[in-house]
Amino acid sequence: MKQFINSKETLVTEAIDGSLRMAGGRLARLDGYPHIKVVVRTDWDRSKVALVSGGGSGHEPSHAGFVGQGMLTAAVCGEVFASPSVDAVLAGILAVTGKAGCLLIVKNYTGDRLNFGLAAERARAFGLKVNMVIVDDDVALPDLPQARGVAGTLFVHKIAGALADQGADLDTVTQAAIEVIEGVVSIGMSLDTCTIPGSPKEERIAGGKAELGLGIHGEPGIEQVGFSGAKDAVEMVVDRLAPNIGPGPHVALLNNLGGATPLEMAVLAEELVRSRIGEQIRWIVGPAPMMTSLDMQGFSVSLLPLGKVAERGLLAPVAPWAWPGCLPVGDIAVEPLPDGLTPILPTPSSNPQVRQFIENCCDILIAAEEDLNALDAKSGDGDTGSTLATAARALKSAMDRLPLADLTQLYRAIGLELSQTMGGSSGVLLAIFFAAAGDASASGNDITSSLVAGLDRIQQVGGARPGDRTMIDALAPALEALPGGLAAAAAAAREGADATAKITKARAGRASYISAENLAGHNDPGAEAVARLLEKLGTG
Amino acid sequence: MKQFINSKETLVTEAIDGSLRMAGGRLARLDGYPHIKVVVRTDWDRSKVALVSGGGSGHEPSHAGFVGQGMLTAAVCGEVFASPSVDAVLAGILAVTGKAGCLLIVKNYTGDRLNFGLAAERARAFGLKVNMVIVDDDVALPDLPQARGVAGTLFVHKIAGALADQGADLDTVTQAAIEVIEGVVSIGMSLDTCTIPGSPKEERIAGGKAELGLGIHGEPGIEQVGFSGAKDAVEMVVDRLAPNIGPGPHVALLNNLGGATPLEMAVLAEELVRSRIGEQIRWIVGPAPMMTSLDMQGFSVSLLPLGKVAERGLLAPVAPWAWPGCLPVGDIAVEPLPDGLTPILPTPSSNPQVRQFIENCCDILIAAEEDLNALDAKSGDGDTGSTLATAARALKSAMDRLPLADLTQLYRAIGLELSQTMGGSSGVLLAIFFAAAGDASASGNDITSSLVAGLDRIQQVGGARPGDRTMIDALAPALEALPGGLAAAAAAAREGADATAKITKARAGRASYISAENLAGHNDPGAEAVARLLEKLGTG
Repeated sequence: MKQFINSKETLVTEAIDGSLRMAGGRLARLDGYPHIKVVVRTDWDRSKVALVSGGGSGHEPSHAGFVGQGMLTAAVCGEVFASPSVDAVLAGILAVTGKAGCLLIVKNYTGDRLNFGLAAERARAFGLKVNMVIVDDDVALPDLPQARGVAGTLFVHKIAGALADQGADLDTVTQAAIEVIEGVVSIGMSLDTCTIPGSPKEERIAGGKAELGLGIHGEPGIEQVGFSGAKDAVEMVVDRLAPNIGPGPHVALLNNLGGATPLEMAVLAEELVRSRIGEQIRWIVGPAPMMTSLDMQGFSVSLLPLGKVAERGLLAPVAPWAWPGCLPVGDIAVEPLPDGLTPILPTPSSNPQVRQFIENCCDILIAAEEDLNALDAKSGDGDTGSTLATAARALKSAMDRLPLADLTQLYRAIGLELSQTMGGSSGVLLAIFFAAAGDASASGNDITSSLVAGLDRIQQVGGARPGDRTMIDALAPALEALPGGLAAAAAAAREGADATAKITKARAGRASYISAENLAGHNDPGAEAVARLLEKLGTG
Repeated sequence: MKQFINSKETLVTEAIDGSLRMAGGRLARLDGYPHIKVVVRTDWDRSKVALVSGGGSGHEPSHAGFVGQGMLTAAVCGEVFASPSVDAVLAGILAVTGKAGCLLIVKNYTGDRLNFGLAAERARAFGLKVNMVIVDDDVALPDLPQARGVAGTLFVHKIAGALADQGADLDTVTQAAIEVIEGVVSIGMSLDTCTIPGSPKEERIAGGKAELGLGIHGEPGIEQVGFSGAKDAVEMVVDRLAPNIGPGPHVALLNNLGGATPLEMAVLAEELVRSRIGEQIRWIVGPAPMMTSLDMQGFSVSLLPLGKVAERGLLAPVAPWAWPGCLPVGDIAVEPLPDGLTPILPTPSSNPQVRQFIENCCDILIAAEEDLNALDAKSGDGDTGSTLATAARALKSAMDRLPLADLTQLYRAIGLELSQTMGGSSGVLLAIFFAAAGDASASGNDITSSLVAGLDRIQQVGGARPGDRTMIDALAPALEALPGGLAAAAAAAREGADATAKITKARAGRASYISAENLAGHNDPGAEAVARLLEKLGTG
């Protein structure tokens, strides 16, 4: 499998170094590469109880990402999914442990228990006070005496970390950790396996299936279950958790096992809150990747009964960014839609001359439908003529409701009509053109200036400039010439439109995808429409 | 493709609701589902410039995850990879814009430009001051006039957000945003495509290839390039960025496009810092998922020249958790390994009786090698006898360096010898047993109490209890009987060892994987070893 790594052998040390680059000196590693991979706090004076955790890598941000004030003092990192050595753990303990002692927080995997356990013995031989707790929060197998330690470990880090930070002694911190471990339950579900660096990906989960009750080392779940969506997935998870929790309030930890998208995780969060235990969930940590299994597309839910110590510990501020915070679960705040979404319709008014002018414009565009379509077929999808003609017909039928006697309102009203009847980008751009012209007119600009304001705005929004082979190539020179009269504007538009036939590289719109030879010799249909409109108006 | 969603149609609204559950009331959505999906700050009084952004969903945490003090005021969310409607954008603008006005931050995609652009016009018709900036940071195609807007957008959110939060006026905020946009350059690389909800995954990237220069909507990269690892990947990205940046210091944003693991992202961060532009990177944002493309296994690098406004803005504190902070890039802090990793060797001393006793023990275990192996073959891998015999032989050859006259030191020394010569779990557990006994002895305990302390410790670390079919089933009753003499202890051990033949469900160790019928009638080899040792010692 392809991965952004250099080699399996250097993966963990390079990743640790990469993360230490941005630690601003608050974190360091011990000088024991490659065998000893330990990340320690540098803002640490050994005056309080040290918290040391770790285990195999591949669970990032666990554990190095949680080293910092209020959580871990040191993280001992093994290779991917492999326990660190006794020497590495001992180095971590010795590096951070003072008179106040040290608590080792170990996930219940044999390798970790043994290596942390022996390291603890060797540290004790130096006269250090070292306690060890073993997290076994996984409830996948109800009758297994050795439940695995999974994401519930984060509760231990956070709650024990807060107590240690407040200066509690080793026994108090240890006791709090034990109480968390006794209370916390977790279970995971995944739709796909993880990709172990340097190994081909195991494809063991069939289509339509999910794995329920999995650990964090790529091992198979206790069963494959039918998968029919997020709601059903959360229900199955809740079915396993519910028998293991009391009736009181809980805090939930919703962990991304690595490969689930934030969208999926947010949907799972919503389903968890809506589930039959949702009422019992007062606080939530996540959804976020906290105890991952490389890129596994899965999640886990951990539940901890809420006590005072737990609540206080979870809410205490911490330095590590990877801790997503503990947030209250509540109703979804909904605010009413603002007024103004339904456009205020202008008061219709009458002006026979203006009406005649607009109807002329519309008729010209309707008459040009086939020609413009034919032109567009050379460079686009052949519908420019129809799009404009349809809009023109709609505008003609809207005459009676237009404020024909109020030019400022008329621009805006035309923009509104076009935005509602004319599909595609060109409809939106013309709507913007007229709306901006209306704004300018409202500010006291004359017709030319108002239309120029509209042109400026569609250049900003649409991104096209003169020379880009769009209607702007006719519209811009026409507006520039307009103070000299309609005939001058028409001549300028014609010149601009004809010049587009020589632009063989469109820089905006659909024609930008068309080859040079297909564009050469044909006017841009939008520019041609502008030119034809002005020519006919001048001669009409 | 399987995903943790309920339906494509409800995905975005359910995800927004899921994230609002934990917003603690600081965020709300407008009451316009399903058409209008807008997330707004509730701690907002319209007295400052509002920042509105958004676009298609699938880029989470962008944009809703960046709504909060110091960044966005509102996020307008479309369906996955689809622009939100004009009405939705207008609703967002109207919901948060006061007299100070509003800045729209739009990524350069046609749909977003048009819909945000027209919404801006409609908002202006209400007399609101609305500015719009278009982010076009992608440098994948150097001669494309319409560069896409990608992760560099985050710089705009953060820097403009900080200014707005400090009370700057609309022109100042807009100008700062424009300066960021003029300075920022980005490029992305991916090893795999993304999975669009409800669609089969497109497999277009061949083995050994990566895509360079991709957008954030699953569109193909500008080219497929050979992929040979993280270092090479970063070099190719740097090759595209370097010609577009000046010689001064920069801030980098290292964005996870969704599916890269934290390990990969940290390796990429390290390679970026080590690259030829590494010296120019003073600050870094990430690595973190900020502007994702669903589950795409890729990353992007954005670079912004450092100015005072940018630096101040990037460092200003913000409410949204999704902002990973802007951290200084520096050397890796390395601390020396602590003393004590090389165990202090005890001073050898002589005691003929003790030496004889230990040698007897060793000889008994060596003699039992074949019997114990045969027993282990019934329930394990048949090596218990050899493991113990090897350790016994090693211990015999170490006699001259043992502190035979100092019992406390002797326990520890034996533990150390065993941990160095005896492989596997049993070696670690015996090392722990003797180390803990040594600790207890150092605290003034007699032989029995010290050995019981060792037993307690291996039960904690190993997790086995009496009745679990391990050597503890012989060791525990033997130590209980030991005050009554060696013969009593031997008898108790024998009774315990024989009882293991009736335990057909092992609860720890390798035998826990063996079926009941294969275990029945055979003593556990570890328990048998203990019983045989004591029996022979008693009769020897």
